[in-house]
Amino acid sequence: MIGRMTSTDSFSLRPVGRVKSPYTEASDVPRGLGAKHEAEGVLEIAPELEEGLTDIEGFSHLFVIWVFDRSESVELVGTPPCDETPHGVFATRSPFRPNPIGLTVVELLRREGRRLHVRGVDMLDGTPILDIKPYLSGVPAASLRRGWLDAVEARKTGLQ
Amino acid sequence: MIGRMTSTDSFSLRPVGRVKSPYTEASDVPRGLGAKHEAEGVLEIAPELEEGLTDIEGFSHLFVIWVFDRSESVELVGTPPCDETPHGVFATRSPFRPNPIGLTVVELLRREGRRLHVRGVDMLDGTPILDIKPYLSGVPAASLRRGWLDAVEARKTGLQ
Repeated sequence: MIGRMTSTDSFSLRPVGRVKSPYTEASDVPRGLGAKHEAEGVLEIAPELEEGLTDIEGFSHLFVIWVFDRSESVELVGTPPCDETPHGVFATRSPFRPNPIGLTVVELLRREGRRLHVRGVDMLDGTPILDIKPYLSGVPAASLRRGWLDAVEARKTGLQ
Repeated sequence: MIGRMTSTDSFSLRPVGRVKSPYTEASDVPRGLGAKHEAEGVLEIAPELEEGLTDIEGFSHLFVIWVFDRSESVELVGTPPCDETPHGVFATRSPFRPNPIGLTVVELLRREGRRLHVRGVDMLDGTPILDIKPYLSGVPAASLRRGWLDAVEARKTGLQ
């Protein structure tokens, strides 16, 4: 399960576990502005890595780094579901990324051995997990600027 | 520059760019409780991916997903610099991870073409970048529990 560098320019990574999720198709996952990610799921870690979960139950929230393993293409510029204008892939959460890596913050509900029951999954069932990290602090909302997303929200709010 | 799955169980990823950082040795990077990451650096994206940065300048903060490319080992349980007791790797930000992936939130100061000038780097100079995502929202501090880290902070504050 240990992924390591294979050359100076390519990294071979192996899943540390898989996501159990109620979603089996990309179209099942709520998308776009105001999408709520309240779905519960399980992060199932490989048996030989269970020791790495020691003390994780003390954290309320976790970062999950995972692979869009059913995403087949790359779009450097694309139009998100909530907007009509295209944006660069690094300014969106599009699955069509140069490296198909996803990042999700989940709430840890409870741990059962090597299974972490969580709320807030937006991955498909069976999604490979690359890493889990504790969520330690966030940027205060008052300090955030969110570019095109703020503009879309302002426009849609104005229309309502 | 396009990394893709090579088998059902292993993913080959290639850097989308590199970090320019003032830190050249791991011992240069502030570590432990209360470490401030105010260092400025540059995220330099590969020329052929520059289009993917379109509109990124509207965001104040970014997630950077990167590789601990100078980390050689894995410790499923280890003792962080700020504590005396060991914790599971998935409950820490240790570099000795099953997949040597790092995650940092940086503040975007300005963009110059394919170079993003940022504040808050904690990576070494030359670190490979796997992905950049916009920071859209954070978990409110009042909702966070931070396990062993809260316990260490409470103990250290009590001692002062």
